[in-house]
Amino acid sequence: MAAPSVATLDPADIARVSDLAARAREASRRLVLLSRADKDDALRAMADALDAETDAVVAANAEDVERGRAGGMAEGLVDRLTLDRDRVAAVADALRDIAALPDPVGEVVRGSTLANGLQIRQVRVPMGVVGMIYEARPNVTVDAAGLGLKSGNAVILRGGSAAESTNRALVTVMRRALEEQGLPADAIGLLEGGRDAVRALLTARGQVDLIIPRGGAGLIQTVVTESTVPVIETGVGNCHVYVDAAADLDKALAIAVNAKTHRPSVCNAAETLLVHASLADEFLPKVLAELSGAGVVLHTDAAAGSAAEAAGIPHVEATEEDWDTEYLALEMAVGVVPDLDAALAHVRAHSSGHTEAIVTEDRAAARRFTTEVDAAAVMVNASTRFTDGGEFGFGAEIGISTQKLHARGPMALPELTTTKWIVEGDGQVR
Amino acid sequence: MAAPSVATLDPADIARVSDLAARAREASRRLVLLSRADKDDALRAMADALDAETDAVVAANAEDVERGRAGGMAEGLVDRLTLDRDRVAAVADALRDIAALPDPVGEVVRGSTLANGLQIRQVRVPMGVVGMIYEARPNVTVDAAGLGLKSGNAVILRGGSAAESTNRALVTVMRRALEEQGLPADAIGLLEGGRDAVRALLTARGQVDLIIPRGGAGLIQTVVTESTVPVIETGVGNCHVYVDAAADLDKALAIAVNAKTHRPSVCNAAETLLVHASLADEFLPKVLAELSGAGVVLHTDAAAGSAAEAAGIPHVEATEEDWDTEYLALEMAVGVVPDLDAALAHVRAHSSGHTEAIVTEDRAAARRFTTEVDAAAVMVNASTRFTDGGEFGFGAEIGISTQKLHARGPMALPELTTTKWIVEGDGQVR
Repeated sequence: MAAPSVATLDPADIARVSDLAARAREASRRLVLLSRADKDDALRAMADALDAETDAVVAANAEDVERGRAGGMAEGLVDRLTLDRDRVAAVADALRDIAALPDPVGEVVRGSTLANGLQIRQVRVPMGVVGMIYEARPNVTVDAAGLGLKSGNAVILRGGSAAESTNRALVTVMRRALEEQGLPADAIGLLEGGRDAVRALLTARGQVDLIIPRGGAGLIQTVVTESTVPVIETGVGNCHVYVDAAADLDKALAIAVNAKTHRPSVCNAAETLLVHASLADEFLPKVLAELSGAGVVLHTDAAAGSAAEAAGIPHVEATEEDWDTEYLALEMAVGVVPDLDAALAHVRAHSSGHTEAIVTEDRAAARRFTTEVDAAAVMVNASTRFTDGGEFGFGAEIGISTQKLHARGPMALPELTTTKWIVEGDGQVR
Repeated sequence: MAAPSVATLDPADIARVSDLAARAREASRRLVLLSRADKDDALRAMADALDAETDAVVAANAEDVERGRAGGMAEGLVDRLTLDRDRVAAVADALRDIAALPDPVGEVVRGSTLANGLQIRQVRVPMGVVGMIYEARPNVTVDAAGLGLKSGNAVILRGGSAAESTNRALVTVMRRALEEQGLPADAIGLLEGGRDAVRALLTARGQVDLIIPRGGAGLIQTVVTESTVPVIETGVGNCHVYVDAAADLDKALAIAVNAKTHRPSVCNAAETLLVHASLADEFLPKVLAELSGAGVVLHTDAAAGSAAEAAGIPHVEATEEDWDTEYLALEMAVGVVPDLDAALAHVRAHSSGHTEAIVTEDRAAARRFTTEVDAAAVMVNASTRFTDGGEFGFGAEIGISTQKLHARGPMALPELTTTKWIVEGDGQVR
């Protein structure tokens, strides 16, 4: 897919993005000078302002919801879009939680004194200007602004058009709170306009330091292929659970069911269950019955289909496509594999590099799985649902990277920083 | 600049790159299983093979040199292209040096035990398949292959067409050595063909994990704008030396001259000298005389020009372009600034984000400079020439990143890896 030539963009969009980025850059130069206390005070002031302006936010959100319903938006999406008073309180609290997290900026990553007396240290510093492109859920607007501020970055936010009024209200409140703290409002920018405005952002290389897309596969693919600004790809999770011959079957049952059904709509939910052939008679009917009982539509290969058939469990025949499908729903592909090699080959062929799990009590099998599977997270005897910034103890999450550059897996505050080498000498020359 | 549509590429080039990438991927799956000892043995075997095949390599190189000379190649480039027996011995030794470095793969970056008993650890793992696109110097072919192998990556090498015969000979020798060690020859791939072959590599997203361009600004710009594969931008260095009012003038003189003249053709050489106005009468004529005496063409602003004029030092008037020019030669832009703020503003406007230096004995000035300058390396009282993997004690260098994502500054073995989260549990579910 070809990136659009900048020349085909409306000059007005380019100018608007340039202006937004220049103001964000100016703001970022102020942010780099702030102490942790300054930033935490501002985050709490933003939270207080959201609490105080709850009515205005809820009213703006009602406009979006009404427009969505009038346009035939599915109820699931309407629910994600909706901000009632409780949800506004929750997003405000999220800012207070971010204030309580340690400041990544200034952390010394490594350092040494060289033979010639030069003292070198690699220090975490803000990225500068970070663009976030995301879809309907308006809580991302507040999270991204908060994580950006805490990590010393100015952000340019581009939410879904369905949440336009809500995002405008949230950003207005947060910008005003920053100004009242004596900080630059332009630390939080909102990009409005059509698709060309997004394209202008994606090609603002040098003006924007990083773009993080959050949303469905289509959004992410567009950003990744069209952007000349560095991107961190997030999210698509075609996660597998492999139940090994040496599995503890109680653990396997609990993990398979939890990984699929605990929250099917998210990227760390499992989409495929692979079962070792030696477990086809005893374990397989049991796990299929449990999944089916939980409402999961089972897409089975021949062997799993036979086991389901024999046990009278509803199932459909898996197509080749099923093995690559991120259902994000109560559906699961189920296959029987003759051995660990076949399981590894299947995962290799179909993994999206997010999270892969093995259930086994065999140390050698676990070791091979964790070594050979190429993914952001590899689990042994644990549900795929644990790949999450909150679960990992990061206290926040800006997304889950499925790429290998810069960050891989759950991203929190340190992943929003870069580093700088500071070299102090006494007149050294080469 | 628009990326070319894949559809406009010759299908033969796409097929060739796909095949090369698939074989590299297959090889990378073997590399991930190797112990450090296996890899070091292979590196030493490659070095021995290069020593043994010196004659063949030198003969192949002679073809390239002859073709280059016949085509009117400048002597400087001919020198960079030439591999005599001593230089072959040096590149072989570089592989032995890499064997002596610690293995980055397997390093535990961080980890913890969660409240629920899950043991999580973030471990360095190879990227997978790394593409290197570079220009004339054939030693990069051997360095990149060696650093790739040590970090567990398969590499796809694309050298300059001027070094075609040399690169083919070097790669043939190294691949054969790998095979003799029982390792996959496809760990080292060579991409031949025209510009379309390079374009096919740049758009092989998913098949290639990372591309590192090394070379001039034109090459890097092409790779950065055309690639859909993640790229680490390297190299362009418009480095400044700012001599503050509170500078020790002996140090300032030594640093300015060293930064400009020690090796003018490299990216960490200084291109602009900024001098505080209070030093215009005493220090400025002295440093200009020294630089001029070392053969440096001085491009001066009005104030520096006056000082040069008064002291009878040859100089030319700086144009706006000079402040953005990476001369890579014995030329330097020289300006006088009224204060630290003006120096910071100048650096901000013209820095390429590589290395910036201040010379000062004033702690507050040093602190402001290191905090406010946004660059991969910021030096206090040291020559810009120290931004280098060897100088920093990394033992090797694959390039100097001037971007903020993944790696910033000198890149060595750890920067050629990514990480994987390994999560070990005992049946945990959410």
